[in-house]
Amino acid sequence: MKISILGGGGFLGRKIAAKLAKDGTLGGKPIAELTLFDVVDPPKPEAPFPVNAIGGDVVNLPDSAIPAGTSVVFHLAAVVSAQAEADYDLGRRVNIRGTDAVIDRCRALGTRPRVVFTSSVASFSADQNSILPDNTRQIPGNSYGAQKAAAELFLADASRRGFLDVVSLRLPTVIVRPGRPNKAASSFFSAIVREPLLGLDTELPVGDDFAVWVCSPRRAVNWLMHAASMDTSKMGLDRSIDPPGISTTVAHLLQALEQVSPGASRHVKRVADETIAAIVSTWPPAFEALHARTLGFSAHEPVLEVVRAFIEDDLAATKADRGIAV
Amino acid sequence: MKISILGGGGFLGRKIAAKLAKDGTLGGKPIAELTLFDVVDPPKPEAPFPVNAIGGDVVNLPDSAIPAGTSVVFHLAAVVSAQAEADYDLGRRVNIRGTDAVIDRCRALGTRPRVVFTSSVASFSADQNSILPDNTRQIPGNSYGAQKAAAELFLADASRRGFLDVVSLRLPTVIVRPGRPNKAASSFFSAIVREPLLGLDTELPVGDDFAVWVCSPRRAVNWLMHAASMDTSKMGLDRSIDPPGISTTVAHLLQALEQVSPGASRHVKRVADETIAAIVSTWPPAFEALHARTLGFSAHEPVLEVVRAFIEDDLAATKADRGIAV
Repeated sequence: MKISILGGGGFLGRKIAAKLAKDGTLGGKPIAELTLFDVVDPPKPEAPFPVNAIGGDVVNLPDSAIPAGTSVVFHLAAVVSAQAEADYDLGRRVNIRGTDAVIDRCRALGTRPRVVFTSSVASFSADQNSILPDNTRQIPGNSYGAQKAAAELFLADASRRGFLDVVSLRLPTVIVRPGRPNKAASSFFSAIVREPLLGLDTELPVGDDFAVWVCSPRRAVNWLMHAASMDTSKMGLDRSIDPPGISTTVAHLLQALEQVSPGASRHVKRVADETIAAIVSTWPPAFEALHARTLGFSAHEPVLEVVRAFIEDDLAATKADRGIAV
Repeated sequence: MKISILGGGGFLGRKIAAKLAKDGTLGGKPIAELTLFDVVDPPKPEAPFPVNAIGGDVVNLPDSAIPAGTSVVFHLAAVVSAQAEADYDLGRRVNIRGTDAVIDRCRALGTRPRVVFTSSVASFSADQNSILPDNTRQIPGNSYGAQKAAAELFLADASRRGFLDVVSLRLPTVIVRPGRPNKAASSFFSAIVREPLLGLDTELPVGDDFAVWVCSPRRAVNWLMHAASMDTSKMGLDRSIDPPGISTTVAHLLQALEQVSPGASRHVKRVADETIAAIVSTWPPAFEALHARTLGFSAHEPVLEVVRAFIEDDLAATKADRGIAV
């Protein structure tokens, strides 16, 4: 099978590429070719199959980004939350026109590829005391969330029309992200674990009791692989899934950090940021996520394991990347 | 105040223009100027204020379609359901890119005009036994509905950002439409009343027990006027309204027709149409519509009055239009 990852140079894109390269298969089928597409040529993993790396604009998607014969497309290409809030035109262009370009390319292929789309918890709004059932309406409190919810609609419609076969995963806030702080409003949820483990100070823009719906990179990759290979024949018109993340709090995250690295949480400085708080405080802190379980999406590990997994999987590379002595 | 009607040459657009021309005011404020925009120059009503009629492409919206100083925009410009289903590219272009153009023009004005957007019951899917609460998720079973639901998201986001101030009305199937059958999948719901009253045969593509959520043109215009002048300050992020239509059946409609014009229902020929049935059978037949009532949207009149109103308001003009002797 041929697989494409749009946004293949990003955090999750690279994790998926590495996993596919390691396994050599997806859903039990051997991988014949992997294409990675991003704004600039994405890094290629060592793999037992050919890997193409292509740079370009997702809105003017080159045919080579989704070659003829592709059966799975991971569509992760996006402008993230705080950036889409700061630049309305850019968010609309990449998150909507880019998704249209993906639909058009899949339609042109005529072979109805599986598309795994990363939507977001940011497409919902709710207060800090909410637990959202699967049938909750998406009433986004930010442009990123509105664009993700609309892209879900377009992809589900394209799926119904037979252009493609989509599974949209509304990912929780993924922690702990490696690398550097980014323009996602949720960036600090990773930073408050990652930066202290690097020996660096970091700012916490919300209160310690702030509740958040999270998942680990390991779990996100596991869900994305499942979405790429699961049976969709019984999904009907509803192609969007709230996967079973975990609801945690800043205090609980810092407690896990302390348990793994005593004293590390002293690097977390409380500096209120109204702009960031305004965005993330509309994101629901918990979901029932029942439908996902019946569809075979795996349960989440505890927060302590999330912190340990970052150390195992990403701490050394993050240090090297940022020029910090190991 | 200056008012624009995009889709001002269409059925509802002309009704709104006529009502504004007759009243000379909207929400108690005198109207200074009315601009009608459509694919071809819309007809101008006789009015106590200047009326501009402009033809063009909504995607390349001329600034003159929403002049500087406009405080209310009725955005009715759309590709209808069966047409959007038959021509995916056209539907996406007009229903999505067209809405983006409206957002961009309002944003450029900088005066946050009220935008009244006509969304649709077609953005939901449900079986014939459903009664939908206000918080129901939109899971569209047709491209038109998907595009309308996405446009609601974009307009609500633009509203949140302060580009405009939207109220989206998810209109029921509007009956009885004057003129000729059109490309809306719901066209037959009007045709089974209108055509018999013209002495013409018409085809019924669904069973007599088929249930449908409808409103009259009079009620739709009344709701649209209310949406244009109501206080939106307490609406928050949710800018979409399910107005209080009525749930009726084909049999009930034909009974009302018979009561008004005995023998007329003999013109209705049962000819099953799977394509039309497939689209309309995913549209919910009933809504609770509680939120709309608290926001002051008026209750609906009985079906018998809907048939009588067509005769009073539109039958003569429809006969003249179609060259049928009065």
